[in-house]
Amino acid sequence: MVALEEKGVKYEYRSEQDVMKNKSALLLEMNPVHKKIPVLIHNGKPVCESIIQIQYIDEVWSDKNPFLPSDPYQKAQALFWADFIDKKLYVCGRKTWATKGEELEAAKKEFIEILKTLESELGDKHYFGGDKFGFVDIVLIGFYSWFPSYQKFGNFSIEPECSKLMDWCKRCMSLADSEKVTGYVLELKKLYGIE
Amino acid sequence: MVALEEKGVKYEYRSEQDVMKNKSALLLEMNPVHKKIPVLIHNGKPVCESIIQIQYIDEVWSDKNPFLPSDPYQKAQALFWADFIDKKLYVCGRKTWATKGEELEAAKKEFIEILKTLESELGDKHYFGGDKFGFVDIVLIGFYSWFPSYQKFGNFSIEPECSKLMDWCKRCMSLADSEKVTGYVLELKKLYGIE
Repeated sequence: MVALEEKGVKYEYRSEQDVMKNKSALLLEMNPVHKKIPVLIHNGKPVCESIIQIQYIDEVWSDKNPFLPSDPYQKAQALFWADFIDKKLYVCGRKTWATKGEELEAAKKEFIEILKTLESELGDKHYFGGDKFGFVDIVLIGFYSWFPSYQKFGNFSIEPECSKLMDWCKRCMSLADSEKVTGYVLELKKLYGIE
Repeated sequence: MVALEEKGVKYEYRSEQDVMKNKSALLLEMNPVHKKIPVLIHNGKPVCESIIQIQYIDEVWSDKNPFLPSDPYQKAQALFWADFIDKKLYVCGRKTWATKGEELEAAKKEFIEILKTLESELGDKHYFGGDKFGFVDIVLIGFYSWFPSYQKFGNFSIEPECSKLMDWCKRCMSLADSEKVTGYVLELKKLYGIE
């Protein structure tokens, strides 16, 4: 959704009522292999797996806000970090609320290590995409709404360990808010006929 | 390596002597995050993760034998199946020689199911890439040299269950052999000065 919003593409969001126990006929038809959300449906055809979806969106709506660098090496680096986030963060994040005891302690330690690795890749850059919000930023910010749950159920704090990454999160969120406000003001201007 | 050969790119192959217990300084320097092989080093810079490497090779040497379709949807489909193979086949294949009892039986069943899913995606096509050997073909054929070990240690046979996919394997291997022979004949022609 962040990717579609960045491209200014209108979409209809459909939530899956009970993805664990009672998958919808539409989900089973659109993603028969993995039977997982999210599925992007464009022109009636499904695109599955989030990183592939973001690449697809970037290519189809290539005229606005490119997410991936055009240089093959820079592009491979962005895909590497997106893949790292995709492989590590979901699995480890899940353990912070689904395990106990030693396994939980190990998961919390690993979670902070993953974030520190990402923080070191971010370095002094404003975004992972450099001056602009890019591919890796889109993939990582998708996990941000899970952070409060990870911390609450895992009983740990991210901020003291990874303050630079938390600053990055805040920058991304204020960007999203400011874009929403800009969109809202544009609507108001239209409504009141202000050019 | 298959990808580099398909592009006709000369490369130097360096094997890692003891990747399990004693990783080389070069590997640790080139892939500090995952510390895994294979690593592609081009212009002194590393590209890690096999699917990202194949995409990189396809983009850098874009003038010969494109692996990925240019249409964004077809490209997303190829990436989806490459990701499916990458996520499923290695993990499940490993279980055929590293587990026992019920876990082994489940792994063998799952392994055949994965191959059947791929077989159904292949359908009546000559290659996953259609008439030509493409991205998904490169990713999947990389596992072919493991098939004898999976079958031997897991004590099961792939051929009776997935004969169409085994036919595809044979087509790919004869293609590799015929390309090697073509290359050899070209060398001979040069050697003897035959135009």
